[in-house]
Amino acid sequence: MMPFLTPGTVVIGQSGGPTAVINQSLIGVAKACLQRPEVFTKVLGAVHGVNGILKGEFIDFGAEDPANLEVVAGTPSSALKSVRRKASKDDCQAIFARFKELNVRAFFYIGGNDTAETTHIIDEMAKQVGYDLACFHVPKTIDNDLRVTDHCPGYGSAAKFVAQAFMGDNLDNRALSGIKVNIVMGRNAGWLTAAAALARILPQDGPHLIYCPEADFSLDAFCADAEAVYRKLGRCVIAVSEGIHGPGGKEIIDSKEVDSHGNKQLSGSGALGDFLADTLKAHLAKVMPDKKHRVRADTFGYLQRCFPGVVSESDAREARQAGVAAVEAAVAGTRSGSIAFKRLDTPYRIECFVTPLATVAKETKPMPRELINAAGNDVVGDKLLPYLRPLVGQLPPVGRLQGISG
Amino acid sequence: MMPFLTPGTVVIGQSGGPTAVINQSLIGVAKACLQRPEVFTKVLGAVHGVNGILKGEFIDFGAEDPANLEVVAGTPSSALKSVRRKASKDDCQAIFARFKELNVRAFFYIGGNDTAETTHIIDEMAKQVGYDLACFHVPKTIDNDLRVTDHCPGYGSAAKFVAQAFMGDNLDNRALSGIKVNIVMGRNAGWLTAAAALARILPQDGPHLIYCPEADFSLDAFCADAEAVYRKLGRCVIAVSEGIHGPGGKEIIDSKEVDSHGNKQLSGSGALGDFLADTLKAHLAKVMPDKKHRVRADTFGYLQRCFPGVVSESDAREARQAGVAAVEAAVAGTRSGSIAFKRLDTPYRIECFVTPLATVAKETKPMPRELINAAGNDVVGDKLLPYLRPLVGQLPPVGRLQGISG
Repeated sequence: MMPFLTPGTVVIGQSGGPTAVINQSLIGVAKACLQRPEVFTKVLGAVHGVNGILKGEFIDFGAEDPANLEVVAGTPSSALKSVRRKASKDDCQAIFARFKELNVRAFFYIGGNDTAETTHIIDEMAKQVGYDLACFHVPKTIDNDLRVTDHCPGYGSAAKFVAQAFMGDNLDNRALSGIKVNIVMGRNAGWLTAAAALARILPQDGPHLIYCPEADFSLDAFCADAEAVYRKLGRCVIAVSEGIHGPGGKEIIDSKEVDSHGNKQLSGSGALGDFLADTLKAHLAKVMPDKKHRVRADTFGYLQRCFPGVVSESDAREARQAGVAAVEAAVAGTRSGSIAFKRLDTPYRIECFVTPLATVAKETKPMPRELINAAGNDVVGDKLLPYLRPLVGQLPPVGRLQGISG
Repeated sequence: MMPFLTPGTVVIGQSGGPTAVINQSLIGVAKACLQRPEVFTKVLGAVHGVNGILKGEFIDFGAEDPANLEVVAGTPSSALKSVRRKASKDDCQAIFARFKELNVRAFFYIGGNDTAETTHIIDEMAKQVGYDLACFHVPKTIDNDLRVTDHCPGYGSAAKFVAQAFMGDNLDNRALSGIKVNIVMGRNAGWLTAAAALARILPQDGPHLIYCPEADFSLDAFCADAEAVYRKLGRCVIAVSEGIHGPGGKEIIDSKEVDSHGNKQLSGSGALGDFLADTLKAHLAKVMPDKKHRVRADTFGYLQRCFPGVVSESDAREARQAGVAAVEAAVAGTRSGSIAFKRLDTPYRIECFVTPLATVAKETKPMPRELINAAGNDVVGDKLLPYLRPLVGQLPPVGRLQGISG
């Protein structure tokens, strides 16, 4: 069988929320393509993803300074700029018209499940209309919720940020006691919230409670849980996913905005944290009326996804590998697919493989329920942490005075 | 003249909000004392500051493992735990009773202006009742608002966190356009908010607007400023101090809690950011009704003050120096005071000196108005940045694709 790939122009794009290592994938794809000028006769980047294709806004990677490309690789957040847009039938027609004009024969789209869906739509439409195109999705998401793959590029670095944030906040809460609620990103999956467990290094370290969206959330249980820890330790640090909900998906508070993929806006607002802190304050005022209680909430927000300088080394390396693997698959003659990771132990390492776009597009993969305890207020560390540690890498050392217990 | 210091026990305490380098000062004081056993016959740490003295909760630094003390020095947030308590007359009597019992002849209290006030009260009372005590305040505050000193230990590291946070958020906002408001800590002084200006590395980098409490804040001007940037660049990143207020100190939104020093609770709530984002959304819906606008707010919250792994090297070094300098001043026979920094150029370095407790206690020092532009919506970078850069040190490198302007 002849390889599928026809020599011609390649277009690379980035879509969805950025990560700290999404440009490692970008430069991985771009450099691998530039190394094969006989196959990829021109290497273009679409600015703002499919929007750039539709508007004809491209950059030429061949004209970029190679040394600067390495600086870009180490820079957080989509260097090609991003977009949240699901390709419609009309979009696809306009995309193929543009692709024809530029003789585009390969398309690499870096993003999460929504991006995989758009890639899948373009791939299916290309087949339908008989347009000769290799079409690849390169994964990224801080949510770690793509199907098939062992884990997702971008997650390790965001998990590192969350772990370090909880390490610091636990130390802060230990110095000035009270109850502290921290809201962590993750619309449907608790992976990022669960990473807070990495902050437990010394006895009594928080977070003392972890709430993921995979377990139904109850305000009454939440108050009782926090009260119990607070009575025992005199303090309590709590990790709460922004995606928590009651039975049947019942919302904790009303959310307002919805994007074009139908996703609700949860980030960029302190509402959930403030509501939970106010609820806890009212609860403590009732059950422990004799003293004043310090209850605070922080919503980590957008800092979690592209904080410069807090990057997991394995995450950066693997994001690059994913980009290169997509190009290699295309060159080897695979028509389309999404890059996924298989985990190999020990030592920890990954192997990339191609999975059909349909297996990754649209739907996400929640955290397995067995990684959360029966009460739904913590992770099962023995199962979760061996999975997490190699993705995040080393955390800064922290110590305590030996004369102070707890 | 005989030196003032009488050999005996020394007590060290930490008070107020923690910083990333407050334990450098602690270990600086403790180790310097341990090196002079003929002067400091016993080196104690009070747990939770004056509360530990009142309750008799101490640790013995002489019994601590020296190697572990270095790990503690590198760990953020008060290792002795902290407290927010202004010493009353009754407190002082109880403190002197305890000090007598333990033969305490030197007291080092690490903290901000409220801590300096408590140190000052104890010092004055000691003089009044004739209790023989050397009494020193070792400065720390992420707010950088202590009087006399060139800058405060703890500020450089918090400023580094804020700078990196804005670098990442600017890249995020560049990828997915819209208006982003970030609320930065700083009750009375804009120093920490102003550090966001360090994130401006490449053309058009945010923050595009910076609001400090030293200039009166107007909601109308804020909306007009943001609209102008947004119309020009298609995006806008804004740094807002949690302490902003209208003319005459008029509050932007109602704040609820007050601590024992009379300070209002501003942190640990997303209310101000959410209010500003909602106000901007409503404004844009009116003046630019033709399209949907993405407006988000994050409140950086407690992460700013003790994030492990984001530490300024000069800040860590100087915090240590401040602790050692306090012990040296005591040994040299100074009765009491607060350690302050004099800046020496070039190369940048500092010299420690002792300033009377009264010159640092209670009142704080705002940012000079000339560091803020006339419109009150930005800092004057040419004046501010040469002051800031050596305190923060190197920031992670960031780059852009050359083919994309802005």
